[in-house]
Amino acid sequence: MIEKVCIIGVGLIGSSLAKALKNTDQAKFICGYGRDAARLKKAKELSIIDEYFTEPKEAIINSDIVIIATPVGSYEKVLGEIKPYLKNDTLVTDVGSTKRSVIEAAEKVFGNLPNTFIPAHPIAGKEKSGFEACDGELFVNKKVIITPLENNDDESISRIQNMWEKVGSEVDYMTPESHDELLGMTSHLPHMLAFSLMDYLISQNPSASIYAAGGFKDFSRIASGNAVMWRDICMNNKDEIIAHIKGYQKSLSALSEAIDNEDMEKLESIFSSAKTTRDSWLG
Amino acid sequence: MIEKVCIIGVGLIGSSLAKALKNTDQAKFICGYGRDAARLKKAKELSIIDEYFTEPKEAIINSDIVIIATPVGSYEKVLGEIKPYLKNDTLVTDVGSTKRSVIEAAEKVFGNLPNTFIPAHPIAGKEKSGFEACDGELFVNKKVIITPLENNDDESISRIQNMWEKVGSEVDYMTPESHDELLGMTSHLPHMLAFSLMDYLISQNPSASIYAAGGFKDFSRIASGNAVMWRDICMNNKDEIIAHIKGYQKSLSALSEAIDNEDMEKLESIFSSAKTTRDSWLG
Repeated sequence: MIEKVCIIGVGLIGSSLAKALKNTDQAKFICGYGRDAARLKKAKELSIIDEYFTEPKEAIINSDIVIIATPVGSYEKVLGEIKPYLKNDTLVTDVGSTKRSVIEAAEKVFGNLPNTFIPAHPIAGKEKSGFEACDGELFVNKKVIITPLENNDDESISRIQNMWEKVGSEVDYMTPESHDELLGMTSHLPHMLAFSLMDYLISQNPSASIYAAGGFKDFSRIASGNAVMWRDICMNNKDEIIAHIKGYQKSLSALSEAIDNEDMEKLESIFSSAKTTRDSWLG
Repeated sequence: MIEKVCIIGVGLIGSSLAKALKNTDQAKFICGYGRDAARLKKAKELSIIDEYFTEPKEAIINSDIVIIATPVGSYEKVLGEIKPYLKNDTLVTDVGSTKRSVIEAAEKVFGNLPNTFIPAHPIAGKEKSGFEACDGELFVNKKVIITPLENNDDESISRIQNMWEKVGSEVDYMTPESHDELLGMTSHLPHMLAFSLMDYLISQNPSASIYAAGGFKDFSRIASGNAVMWRDICMNNKDEIIAHIKGYQKSLSALSEAIDNEDMEKLESIFSSAKTTRDSWLG
């Protein structure tokens, strides 16, 4: 049982992890730290957190684990605020969608990276944001990627791995670079494509959505994520996202050319491969 | 009550419409016409259709309504096969995803367009194809677009409208040109984007899918449609699809540039607008 957990940023992921930790009897006391006292108060009233603080001192002091769950653009500020109150053995971890930038932020704040900082990223989400969408089962059967630092000791890493496994997740390890390249492709790129599709639709004929079938609705669901969170992801995984967009544009241009050339064989092959690959994932 | 309905192509849409017509007591006798006797036999065994034929004569003769539900690339062939057996008052309609090309195919076969041909398109679908995915509720609360011909009489159009309304759909009217432009944007474009994303992923790292969260899975679902159907849609709405891909690429390039320029304000604005627009659709 962890005595005290502090969750910084009680949004969708922060609140869902708080609930999951409670549901799995992992934490005695969970406090939320953030800027908006009124919202934190509501989260407390909903029993998502046991207490809340808007000053870092009370929030962090005597915490065994601190979990940063704010948009990745805020990490440098957040780490600076909490630094004075961390014990030597307080584990600090996070749920951010980018990992290189998170480690860079920690380097800026701490100089030498503390061996107690364990960067992590649960691959889970929802179209809705905020603790109102809190879901204690959000991490069940989801992957969590830990990108350990060279000086992390095995025991600290194990504690974070155990925490995630107990809420139902499967933990994998990779370098921050691999993480950012991979997630740039499997998560950030599709979101950029969906945002762009909405942008294009709005520029053309926003009311056309009434004639949209499932396909379009799925896209719009993807494109309804939190704007600040996605802005920060773009700023913090810039090169990978741009590279993936460029690569994608080549695929899209090749498809467009095949249509223009009436290359039916190529079209059928692209469409079949997509289906075959997807079916292999499901199987 | 319609005495005899012939459904040409007992796939997802054809079989679902057969079931919906039965569920709503609209048809006394529904036969399926197609090439694959073994599959048609199974559809009959599942009581989706009352009888099946692989020769057009028996299928079409004495039909009150003939519904074409094959990939749009097959229409010229299909219309040529059934033409000799149509009565003067047999209504012919379809469910094809493109409308200009469908009308052109009919013109080629019939010379002057028959006043009994009523082109239509239900905006409904599923990721699965074939009568195995048959769903009698597929059209409930879905739009059906009818693109009437100049010489269609009101009574014939009303009969097709009534048929769709009874299975739960809402019927709208537009020109074939408006239909193809609109659906090119709301349906064909998103599918092309999803197919291209799968194509890009396969070219990069097909096993990455295990690290894909909801966003990517939605995309892959969209990209799992029937390859021949989508090939035919591309060939039959070529110009509109290419134009929409070009327009989309501009939106995507603008987003990529905003990331490259670290234009946080613009990014936040694109992401917020997407969310606001989507929320307005839901509300």
